[in-house]
Amino acid sequence: MNKEQLEERIKQIETIISGYLPKEEGEQKTVIEAMNYSILAGGKRLRPMLMQETYRMFGGTGDAVFPFMAAIEMIHTYSLVHDDLPAMDNDEYRRGKKTTWAQFDECTAILAGDGLLNFAFETALKADGGDNPYILPALSVLASKAGIYGMIGGQTADIEAEKRNGSMDEKQLLYIHEHKTAALIQAAMMIGAVLAGASSEETARIEKCAYNIGIAFQIQDDILDVTSTFDVLGKPIGSDEKNHKMTYVSLYGIEKSKEEVKRLSEEAVSILASFGQRNPFLEELVERLINREK
Amino acid sequence: MNKEQLEERIKQIETIISGYLPKEEGEQKTVIEAMNYSILAGGKRLRPMLMQETYRMFGGTGDAVFPFMAAIEMIHTYSLVHDDLPAMDNDEYRRGKKTTWAQFDECTAILAGDGLLNFAFETALKADGGDNPYILPALSVLASKAGIYGMIGGQTADIEAEKRNGSMDEKQLLYIHEHKTAALIQAAMMIGAVLAGASSEETARIEKCAYNIGIAFQIQDDILDVTSTFDVLGKPIGSDEKNHKMTYVSLYGIEKSKEEVKRLSEEAVSILASFGQRNPFLEELVERLINREK
Repeated sequence: MNKEQLEERIKQIETIISGYLPKEEGEQKTVIEAMNYSILAGGKRLRPMLMQETYRMFGGTGDAVFPFMAAIEMIHTYSLVHDDLPAMDNDEYRRGKKTTWAQFDECTAILAGDGLLNFAFETALKADGGDNPYILPALSVLASKAGIYGMIGGQTADIEAEKRNGSMDEKQLLYIHEHKTAALIQAAMMIGAVLAGASSEETARIEKCAYNIGIAFQIQDDILDVTSTFDVLGKPIGSDEKNHKMTYVSLYGIEKSKEEVKRLSEEAVSILASFGQRNPFLEELVERLINREK
Repeated sequence: MNKEQLEERIKQIETIISGYLPKEEGEQKTVIEAMNYSILAGGKRLRPMLMQETYRMFGGTGDAVFPFMAAIEMIHTYSLVHDDLPAMDNDEYRRGKKTTWAQFDECTAILAGDGLLNFAFETALKADGGDNPYILPALSVLASKAGIYGMIGGQTADIEAEKRNGSMDEKQLLYIHEHKTAALIQAAMMIGAVLAGASSEETARIEKCAYNIGIAFQIQDDILDVTSTFDVLGKPIGSDEKNHKMTYVSLYGIEKSKEEVKRLSEEAVSILASFGQRNPFLEELVERLINREK
């Protein structure tokens, strides 16, 4: 796929997500404006895209996956809204736009994050009423990968490490990225599989594949922070070293990190290739994500 | 029922809730400690009690209601944890104990609130796997009454009013209490009804009954803030007037407020009495709640 094709797919996904956003009206209008501002602030729409492509790979048709695509983007967005708060990372800008608390105020951003997390479940529950019998297991995947045994767990461990000035061991580094980064990618692909009727054995293989994608994605992030330039990346490089942040690169060195990206991505693609039905778009997307230059 | 019987019921409910709390272990231990600290800090356990009694009234048996009882208390608790934050009400104490952010820190309290909201859905989803066919509709009630069209909506409107120094009209006052206070009481009783197999007509009557209970409860709160004493209430009286807060009492006066409590509570009890099967404990609980002296 070329850049235009990918951008076209992102637009299609944004149209689906927009269809589930709440109307900016009523006594609670402010929180809804802040929710929609946050979710429409851009992004690669990676998680809904992976979800839909996995759904297609397992032969999924129809629109049962649509509300879940919106839901996972809402959960990803709420996590950024709360992460950016003054009491957390204290970030005023994200993707060149003011973060939610900087654009509105702190209490509106807290409520908008809560609103997005809750509305993710409300939205996913809208898949009920169709004839898909896998709504409950898909909801369970969403809830468990987003919570304290998933993303929130990783976020907590990351903040605990920051309190120790970034000090952590290899086990803690792996825990953080498995949960903070990989868990929602796992949720995305597993929900796509589950909703399309994949068996639990197949879903477990997708979970492993998504783990590899998530970790490889994160290692590539760490590598680019060292090897890229401001012009290519669009943000300052060397920030991890400046912040004394332990990364895969500081732990293993550049060469071993690159080998690990290669190993993880090859394994991920070979898992995808092992299913009866293949999805070339998904395989290309995964390679592109992991081997990106920015 | 006497005081001892009520306390015994509260203990039984706390045992049920405790069975669903996460273990304080792992890399994410801190957030779990903060979640459990918050939920075990006390409270009347009103919402799970109303849920279980409504479930019983409609002939519900078995334990499908248990995870939902824990879930609604988690949602109630998360709303208090986030409300107490410095950026929101900035409260350091609640029920004589340090609030979550004061006991831990701000970012742990934000994550603990997120963790409780997410874990509420994880917990309610544990009801799946039994033979109750009403899990999805019960989840939908929980999500919609807790979100931007329920509790979060009321919280937003309340905060917007505070930004205007408490200025609001009658419509806004009613909106805030219908959503901030009544919505979770509606969720509690409606989920009890839905899980026990109540029809949608019966569930709609329970929704109305719970609305009355919630609003009457709030008006009684406003009345006690004017007519009670520090010794009886255990907290300073006159705080609404001091904070220039618009209340039912400031809007309608004491006498009309008392009449409204009477009207709403009589209607609530008469709705309960109108069902084929009655639950004397629930009827007494409702009267006790509304006509309480503290």
